[in-house]
Amino acid sequence: MSQKLLAEFFGTALLLMIVAGSGIMGETLSNSAGAGNAAVALLGNSIATGCGLYVLISLLAPVSGAHFNPVVSAAACATGNLNKTQLLGYLAAQLAGAIAGIWLTHAMFAQANLQTSSHARAGVAQMLSEFLSTLILLSVIRLGSKNAPEKIALLVAMTVTAGYWFTSSTFFANPAVTLARSLTDTFVGIASTDVLGFVAAQVLALAAYITILRTNFFKT
Amino acid sequence: MSQKLLAEFFGTALLLMIVAGSGIMGETLSNSAGAGNAAVALLGNSIATGCGLYVLISLLAPVSGAHFNPVVSAAACATGNLNKTQLLGYLAAQLAGAIAGIWLTHAMFAQANLQTSSHARAGVAQMLSEFLSTLILLSVIRLGSKNAPEKIALLVAMTVTAGYWFTSSTFFANPAVTLARSLTDTFVGIASTDVLGFVAAQVLALAAYITILRTNFFKT
Amino acid sequence: MSQKLLAEFFGTALLLMIVAGSGIMGETLSNSAGAGNAAVALLGNSIATGCGLYVLISLLAPVSGAHFNPVVSAAACATGNLNKTQLLGYLAAQLAGAIAGIWLTHAMFAQANLQTSSHARAGVAQMLSEFLSTLILLSVIRLGSKNAPEKIALLVAMTVTAGYWFTSSTFFANPAVTLARSLTDTFVGIASTDVLGFVAAQVLALAAYITILRTNFFKT
Amino acid sequence: MSQKLLAEFFGTALLLMIVAGSGIMGETLSNSAGAGNAAVALLGNSIATGCGLYVLISLLAPVSGAHFNPVVSAAACATGNLNKTQLLGYLAAQLAGAIAGIWLTHAMFAQANLQTSSHARAGVAQMLSEFLSTLILLSVIRLGSKNAPEKIALLVAMTVTAGYWFTSSTFFANPAVTLARSLTDTFVGIASTDVLGFVAAQVLALAAYITILRTNFFKT
Repeated sequence: MSQKLLAEFFGTALLLMIVAGSGIMGETLSNSAGAGNAAVALLGNSIATGCGLYVLISLLAPVSGAHFNPVVSAAACATGNLNKTQLLGYLAAQLAGAIAGIWLTHAMFAQANLQTSSHARAGVAQMLSEFLSTLILLSVIRLGSKNAPEKIALLVAMTVTAGYWFTSSTFFANPAVTLARSLTDTFVGIASTDVLGFVAAQVLALAAYITILRTNFFKT
Repeated sequence: MSQKLLAEFFGTALLLMIVAGSGIMGETLSNSAGAGNAAVALLGNSIATGCGLYVLISLLAPVSGAHFNPVVSAAACATGNLNKTQLLGYLAAQLAGAIAGIWLTHAMFAQANLQTSSHARAGVAQMLSEFLSTLILLSVIRLGSKNAPEKIALLVAMTVTAGYWFTSSTFFANPAVTLARSLTDTFVGIASTDVLGFVAAQVLALAAYITILRTNFFKT
Repeated sequence: MSQKLLAEFFGTALLLMIVAGSGIMGETLSNSAGAGNAAVALLGNSIATGCGLYVLISLLAPVSGAHFNPVVSAAACATGNLNKTQLLGYLAAQLAGAIAGIWLTHAMFAQANLQTSSHARAGVAQMLSEFLSTLILLSVIRLGSKNAPEKIALLVAMTVTAGYWFTSSTFFANPAVTLARSLTDTFVGIASTDVLGFVAAQVLALAAYITILRTNFFKT
Repeated sequence: MSQKLLAEFFGTALLLMIVAGSGIMGETLSNSAGAGNAAVALLGNSIATGCGLYVLISLLAPVSGAHFNPVVSAAACATGNLNKTQLLGYLAAQLAGAIAGIWLTHAMFAQANLQTSSHARAGVAQMLSEFLSTLILLSVIRLGSKNAPEKIALLVAMTVTAGYWFTSSTFFANPAVTLARSLTDTFVGIASTDVLGFVAAQVLALAAYITILRTNFFKT
């Protein structure tokens, strides 16, 4: 297996460990039954995710581009930066990594390995939120690569930290992450019946992004 | 429509989404009826706004200057960096963007689109706070552009994150933001009757800033 | 009045506004009577102070060195970077700025201008804490100026943010700040009877620092 | 005593002061009996540790490499960057520094100097967590030194801040830190009976890391 696919596999696994592990830690410590505690859990969750993403992207971007996200890889393919064979490899590595990350998190927190989330995340508003989240993520990567390439790790990390707070869906913006998070019945889970809606919104955003690109909107 | 005006429109819209969305998220998660929770909500609100502003300024400064703020554009006009026709375009784009951002936030959080804030923000103390906030923001942009131009996005972002905490008015410092925030009855709202006082304080700070500039105070 | 003294005056005033204002905001929002809220207030207080210090040092270091602290100016004098006349001017500007900052904060938060703190901060442990805080601050500035001068603003800001948490005295490390904080009966106050102990510990740390310097300890 | 060993001694002492001091502060302020407060304490603890580590590594890396960690020094020895005599000196300085840091923290917070922790941290899950934490830390240092050496202080600091949240063991990843934390009966303590398990997991991760290195996995 190539270094690129290993980087995508381990990077996505670590991303899910950071997202899910910090969610479990925040939820556990804050005894989420009490009032006002879910906000504290989201603070820990969003700060940990931002810090972790910064590290993962800084270290692995030189190896694989540090996509960790099928939508980002598909966009790279659409703009000629990844061929179709590579794309399939990236998607497989990301999906396998995401699931491995969830399972390793469960093992670290002494939880049952196989879980199914009961966390409802549905409705038009949340799908709009996922559509916007994904479009924003793709745009930040595009503009950042052009206008401030040396800052790209920080830009993506800060976008996600802010995104956890300003979107109603908490900025999944990633089909591999969405699918893997349906396999954990913890703070960051998503009910499996709601996965399709989130992924559809993310794919729609990808389509919108590619359409906008073709109109030369981001020509600056 | 020019790239510059598009950048101002989308940048201001995203700024309002970040400010209002993270406010709604913090308020909702912390069940603000409980004690001690508004502080947690402000933590999420201020961290998300700082992260988001850093991203928006880093990405859009090369396009439009990343003003997102009528007072900043007016100051740029007063110092010859924007002509009067451009200024009118900027103000229109910022105002339209700010309102669009609030409405999109409401849609993301499944709230009624048209709202009127009942959040009282009045009194001499808060107007002094807005006057100082705006003067500080303009000074940071001025000195930062001269002494540390490569850090300007971080400097403005950190000023606003700190400003949410150290001013009694939570550092609006932006007439377009102020007006748009009167259209949301959530954590970050401002009663429409209080908009005039805030905007007056902001415009007064702009006048003070231009007067100070003309005395060559910032000659360093 | 010279640009340097203006920079020390305004910088110290803004530092006190940030420290005291964010303390008042945190205390007010968290209704400090409740359990667990003082920690949230300290989070806001420490994050705001770190962000604000980063901005102030980045902007004003090229003008005056951005001391904002009599102990730092005295150390600069001891190492020949400031003459005695300049030192007196710096101390006066810092003290006047610190008091002006507290009074402006009271005005912003609609509080009585003249206050006396009742916040007890005494005992050998806290004095040891102030001694170590001041010695750490001086060492960070010294080593940072030698080993990483382009990062000095970030290094000092992060030292203070961490210092609020890891020292029992919350890292005053500054006689002008200590004196001014005796004039506010809020979260960040210090009873006037305890000022002398804190300042003595800070001056002792300055003496220890100068002694260590003369032994060439920091020769690296 | 050489400058290198002094840097390791003082750096490790300060690291422990930051870790333990911010833990005591968070625990005290949040009255951890209440619901939801341990999460706030961990926020302060993790933010202070990240900020402090960034400062310590930035300042002392040019002197000693800023290991502060026997496992990191042993890995440096395994890759020929430290000889065996130096390694012994580093380990002694780190261990002595760690214990001195704990005792100084107790003095600052007016606590009994000699304490024994009663904080249970045991079980296969936490040992797995320590194994992964240590492997992640060593990998971040390795890849960071190769791919982004100018960012190494930030990368390690952010890894640890995130690690406090996403691992069930809160990312000790350091035998000297583990041993010293058994000497404090506060938020960050570890029962002495649990030290062996943590250190065993850390040493196992070191062995795994060296094995992986020899397979040229990190050849990128």
